[in-house]
Amino acid sequence: MATVAVLGSGVMGTALTFPLADNGHDVRLVGTHLDREIIDSILTRGVHPRLARTVPASVRAYQLEDAEAAFAGADVALSGVNSFGVRWAGEQFRSLLKPGMHVLAIAKGMEAQENGDLRILPDVLADELPEGLRDSVSWSAIVGPSIAGELAARRHTSVVFAGHDTTALDALAALFRTSYYHVWSSTDLFGAEVCAAMKNCYALSVGLAEGALEAIGEGESPDRNHNFEAAVFGQGSVEIRRMLEVLGGRPETLLGLPGVGDMYVTSAGGRNIRLGRHMGAGLTFSQAVEAVTPPGETMTFEGAAAIRVIGGALEKLTERGLLQPEDLPLLRHLYELIALERPLAIPWSAFFGGEPGGRAAP
Amino acid sequence: MATVAVLGSGVMGTALTFPLADNGHDVRLVGTHLDREIIDSILTRGVHPRLARTVPASVRAYQLEDAEAAFAGADVALSGVNSFGVRWAGEQFRSLLKPGMHVLAIAKGMEAQENGDLRILPDVLADELPEGLRDSVSWSAIVGPSIAGELAARRHTSVVFAGHDTTALDALAALFRTSYYHVWSSTDLFGAEVCAAMKNCYALSVGLAEGALEAIGEGESPDRNHNFEAAVFGQGSVEIRRMLEVLGGRPETLLGLPGVGDMYVTSAGGRNIRLGRHMGAGLTFSQAVEAVTPPGETMTFEGAAAIRVIGGALEKLTERGLLQPEDLPLLRHLYELIALERPLAIPWSAFFGGEPGGRAAP
Repeated sequence: MATVAVLGSGVMGTALTFPLADNGHDVRLVGTHLDREIIDSILTRGVHPRLARTVPASVRAYQLEDAEAAFAGADVALSGVNSFGVRWAGEQFRSLLKPGMHVLAIAKGMEAQENGDLRILPDVLADELPEGLRDSVSWSAIVGPSIAGELAARRHTSVVFAGHDTTALDALAALFRTSYYHVWSSTDLFGAEVCAAMKNCYALSVGLAEGALEAIGEGESPDRNHNFEAAVFGQGSVEIRRMLEVLGGRPETLLGLPGVGDMYVTSAGGRNIRLGRHMGAGLTFSQAVEAVTPPGETMTFEGAAAIRVIGGALEKLTERGLLQPEDLPLLRHLYELIALERPLAIPWSAFFGGEPGGRAAP
Repeated sequence: MATVAVLGSGVMGTALTFPLADNGHDVRLVGTHLDREIIDSILTRGVHPRLARTVPASVRAYQLEDAEAAFAGADVALSGVNSFGVRWAGEQFRSLLKPGMHVLAIAKGMEAQENGDLRILPDVLADELPEGLRDSVSWSAIVGPSIAGELAARRHTSVVFAGHDTTALDALAALFRTSYYHVWSSTDLFGAEVCAAMKNCYALSVGLAEGALEAIGEGESPDRNHNFEAAVFGQGSVEIRRMLEVLGGRPETLLGLPGVGDMYVTSAGGRNIRLGRHMGAGLTFSQAVEAVTPPGETMTFEGAAAIRVIGGALEKLTERGLLQPEDLPLLRHLYELIALERPLAIPWSAFFGGEPGGRAAP
C-alpha cells in the first residue's frame, strides 16, 4: 500500500482518489485556497459538493494550511489543479516534495515563450522547484478521455500515464489501476501534452456548430449540424498532427486515448462547448464569456486559454519558418475569434491542405 | 452544365441532388424498386418523404422502368444505393452506363472472400459489368462525414471524392462543389473505403455505452458514459490504422474526413447507434434488431453488416499470419456479439496493445 497526497480538491483531483481508495491506499486530499468549502463539506458530510458524491471514507481531507502534514511520508504527489493553477502548485511543491517522490500532474494546456516556443505544463510545474529537488523526483502526467464525474461514478475510464521514467510510470499505473480505471503508459510525454492541450481548442470549435444553427434561425430544426462538427473534428486531428511534427511528439500519440479519444469526450460537453455555442450564435468572445458565467462569479475556460496561447504562438512559429502560412487554418481562425474578437467565418476551403477551387461560404 | 443520373432515391442519393441542382446541372433521380413511393411523392408533391424536404424543382424524378431515359446522355452516373444494393446497382448499370461516363458511388461496406481478403464496394459494383464497359468509365466514391438530412438542409458538409482517375475526380468535384458542400479529392480509394466501412463498426460500439448504463440501473444518472464512448472511439481509430497497414491504405487517410471525421458523425446517432444501445443494455443482437425494427418492417444495419463481414475475415487473416491474435480485440468482440450472439464483455485490457497488469472488469 502506498501513500498518495493530492494537491487540489477540484472534481478531477477528487475523482482520482476513488480508484486509489478502492485499491486500499492511504490517500490525503488537500484543498487549495479556492477549495475551502469543498474540504469543509468533505470533512463534515463526506460529500464533494460539485461531484455530488460521497468521497470514499478512507480518503482524508485537509485544508491548505495542513498540507505539510498531508504530504509527510507520501510516495506520490498528485498535482490536481488545472492549467491556471500550475505555477501556484509548483510554489507549494517547493516545501511539500521530498526526494524520491513520484509527481503526477493532470493540468492540460501549454505555455508560450516570447519566440513562440511552446512548453508543456509538467515542465512549467517543475520550473518552480530548485534544481536539486526537481531532479530527485519523477515527473509524469495523466492524459486521455476522463470526465471526472464518470470516474467518481466508477464508470469504465481509459487513460495514459505519460512520462520519461518508465519505472515510475509502471509503479504509478499499478497504484491506480482497477477493474474500471484502465491505465496504459507512454514515454511520449511531450506529444501527449500537445494533444491534451490542443484537443481543448478543437472541442470549443465543435461547440460552434450548434450556435451556428441558432444564428440562421434553425435552432429547432430536426436537421442538426453534425457534418459541421465532424469536419472541424477532422481538421483538428490534422492540425494536431502537424504540430506534433513541428514540436516533436510522436504521430501515433494522436490516435487512441491522448488525441482523438480525448478530443471526442471533450467535444461531448462542458463549459468550453457552451462558450463555443454562444460564439457560433454570433456573440463575441467577451459576450460569450458573460453569457456562460453566473452573475458575480469568475470562470476560467481552458479551451479558450489554449487557443490564446497556442494560437498566439502560430504567427511566431510561421515567421521562423517552422510552420507554413497555410498550416493550421482552423486554429488561426479560433485565435482571431477569441483573442481579437473577430466575427465567426470558418475557413472551410483552407482545410485539409486547401480545397481546390473552393468557393467561399456566403 | 453537366447531366447527372442518380440511381437510388434514398436520403443520400436525393440529398446529393441539392448541390448539383444549385449549380444548375441537369439532374435525373431514378428510384429503385424499393423507392416507388418516394418517386411518386416527388412527382406529385415535390417532396422526399424521408428527408421531409422539397426536392429542387429542376431535379427530374423517374421510376425504375424509365431509367434508360434518365441515363440517356448522362455524363455522370451516381450509384445512390447503400451497401445492400451494390450488386443490384451493378446489374442495372450493365445497360445504363455508356463509355466515357464517370461513375460515383456512395455505399459504405466491404465484401469478404473465402480466404479473408476484403474487397471495397466500388470494385464489387464494377464486377457486375462486362470488362470492356468497366474499363471505359471512371470509378470514384464519396467518403467523409455527411448526414443526408443536413446536406439537404444545405448545412456545411465536407467530403472527399476518392478514386484513381484524378481528371475525373477534379471534374466531379467541380460539379458538386458549392458554398456549403466542400469537396476534396484523394487517390487513396482503397484506404478511404476501408475507413468508411470500419467506422460503422466502431460507431455501433459507441452506442453500447448508453445501454451499458441502463444495464446497471444508471440510465437516468447525471453521470453519463462518455469515457466509455471515447475509449472505444480511440481504440477504433487504432484498429482502423492496423487494417490500413495490413490491407494497404495510407495512414493519413485515417485522419481528417474519411476516418475519424466520419466516425465522429456516425457516432452521433442513427439506427446502428440505437442497435448498439439495446445490446449495451443486455439484449442479444437478434433481440436488439427486433427492438429497433418497427412491426411488419425489415431493416438493414450497415454497422452490423460490416462487423459480420470484416470481423468475420479477421480469423482468416490471422491464420494467414497477416494479423496477430492480439490485433483488433474490439472488432473481434463486436463480431462475437453480432455473429455469435455472445453477451457483451468489452475487452478493455486488450486495447491499445494490452494494458500491462490490467484487471478484468467484473
